[in-house]
Amino acid sequence: MERSASSTPSVTLKTIANELGVSVTTVARAMKDGHKVGADMIVKVRETADRLGYVRNLEGAKLRTGKTLIAMAFLNFTEEEEIGDSGAVGLLNGFHKCFAGTDYAVRAVPAARDGMAVDRLRELVRGRLADGVILDLIELQDARVRYLLEADFPFVTYGRTELFSEHAWFDIDNEFAAWQSTDALLRDGFKRIALIDGDTRYTFVRQRVRGYERALREHGIEPDPGLRHHSELAADLARGSVGPLLDRRADGFVCANELTFLGARAGVRDRIGDEVRHIGFALRSGTQIGKYVSTKVHASHYSHIATGRALAELLLKQIDGADPRECQQLAKTTLITTENSSEALIA
Amino acid sequence: MERSASSTPSVTLKTIANELGVSVTTVARAMKDGHKVGADMIVKVRETADRLGYVRNLEGAKLRTGKTLIAMAFLNFTEEEEIGDSGAVGLLNGFHKCFAGTDYAVRAVPAARDGMAVDRLRELVRGRLADGVILDLIELQDARVRYLLEADFPFVTYGRTELFSEHAWFDIDNEFAAWQSTDALLRDGFKRIALIDGDTRYTFVRQRVRGYERALREHGIEPDPGLRHHSELAADLARGSVGPLLDRRADGFVCANELTFLGARAGVRDRIGDEVRHIGFALRSGTQIGKYVSTKVHASHYSHIATGRALAELLLKQIDGADPRECQQLAKTTLITTENSSEALIA
Repeated sequence: MERSASSTPSVTLKTIANELGVSVTTVARAMKDGHKVGADMIVKVRETADRLGYVRNLEGAKLRTGKTLIAMAFLNFTEEEEIGDSGAVGLLNGFHKCFAGTDYAVRAVPAARDGMAVDRLRELVRGRLADGVILDLIELQDARVRYLLEADFPFVTYGRTELFSEHAWFDIDNEFAAWQSTDALLRDGFKRIALIDGDTRYTFVRQRVRGYERALREHGIEPDPGLRHHSELAADLARGSVGPLLDRRADGFVCANELTFLGARAGVRDRIGDEVRHIGFALRSGTQIGKYVSTKVHASHYSHIATGRALAELLLKQIDGADPRECQQLAKTTLITTENSSEALIA
Repeated sequence: MERSASSTPSVTLKTIANELGVSVTTVARAMKDGHKVGADMIVKVRETADRLGYVRNLEGAKLRTGKTLIAMAFLNFTEEEEIGDSGAVGLLNGFHKCFAGTDYAVRAVPAARDGMAVDRLRELVRGRLADGVILDLIELQDARVRYLLEADFPFVTYGRTELFSEHAWFDIDNEFAAWQSTDALLRDGFKRIALIDGDTRYTFVRQRVRGYERALREHGIEPDPGLRHHSELAADLARGSVGPLLDRRADGFVCANELTFLGARAGVRDRIGDEVRHIGFALRSGTQIGKYVSTKVHASHYSHIATGRALAELLLKQIDGADPRECQQLAKTTLITTENSSEALIA
């Protein structure tokens, strides 16, 4: 059996106008902003619309405006199924909180890590599959950003590039966040602090390395490149990186996110069991994970949901044609240190 | 400045046909399934398409078929920002793995927990905003399912109803999963096992309670309703539920998912610190979280990604008009017990 779309005869503005014996213009105004229509009529029109089951015809709106009313988001979905997610759902939540007040829907797809990324954007732009794009995992000379600038297609990046051309972006102050995490561990007395972070082709990783090294130097410690691990931000990879770092006498770990923190902690436990208590941990977080683990941990925190909301708002401004220079936002993390009960017994 | 869509002159099948001096039919066949076209020609046509930058016009396909090529998914996004997600990203990953081979895109929105859910579906069906729907958080007499059956609109549920009408669904054998988790704790010697689970209006929760109680009775223990906590599946709510359960001498916790497990564990630690080691934990998982926590834990596991993939495949079959009775799948969880190093030191 082939299913057919609903065959309910559609209720239009004209149906409502006929029902009330007023003009279509009056109905349209009452449904929209109420311009030149009395408060009584607005109530009457909207009640009638509800009673008749009027649904605004988005397809009509799309045809009139040439818009798709779709925002496409290329996000960092972890492919591993170790711990689930540590960010994308928060971002999606934030998108929905912003778009809930609009006609926009969001389509989220995993960000391609290969050469196909620009091809997929080209297909999107040529096929007009969306009105705007949100991009994650930004590189210094990001090819996707260069393509979208050239195509003059609305977009916002979660992270910065080093391109001269201005574009809309939202970002965490990554250098500050890594400095903050590293500094917190240094103040706890740790000296051989390792960094477990993403691939250095991403801008945020370069910024984080700078903040990490600055904190060390401020405490008179020359950074040891051997104490840095760079890979995809995955729990199992972080876990595997810990052994060699401990061999180099690492006594603390600054982690790029929740997944790498949980991976690093498990890696430490693999090697030295309960001695994990003598190792320091810090991470950049967008959740309250620190409250749910037994380990003392410093979190440089900025909410994933707030980030998603900011990205969505900036994208809407770009779709409306705002100046990209007025669509650039930098957010600072807050340090949250949690010291849980089982640790307190040791202290 | 108002941005305009890309103005690249579009390459059509006709452009490719002219370039190669063959018929449009030949080109169309070579691009599609290769029917009645030689292998050489298929290669030639596809190379030319790539060289000219041909992009299949989805808008044209949509107009011809009347399809939107959109699958709408109403998912359980946790609103709290405690630990992030424990499922939705896995499901989304699975959807994308399935839809990657099709023209379908998925739009994920948070499942409404209020009376608006049916209104939103009505708007979707009347406005033809998607070709099919995936629903989570299914209730015994789910109003959304009844509406979609009545509207004869393609859908698949993640979970079962008690409706007589057949509909497409994928589900975990929840009764078995809860039995498996409870049985594992009973075999470890725990006697006062608490259940931290979802609201009883959901079918899966009813099924889980049955499995939990069956395991207890098989071990000669009469279930104590005071050892059950039902609420939204959120880490902070699970954490808050633990105190009263410990007051009732709970010595083990069967948790509905990763969030409630991490919440329950934190709640136990809040109360009794390191004595957490003498409490048993089990959960239904779709990730490998057990490998990353210090607590010994039994996980009744079935992959979220595999679940997402199955749901997407069933939805495509429904959109193609398959018999709902042939689109019903039950999956069994596997017990994974992880006993981490710091625990081994105690044992």
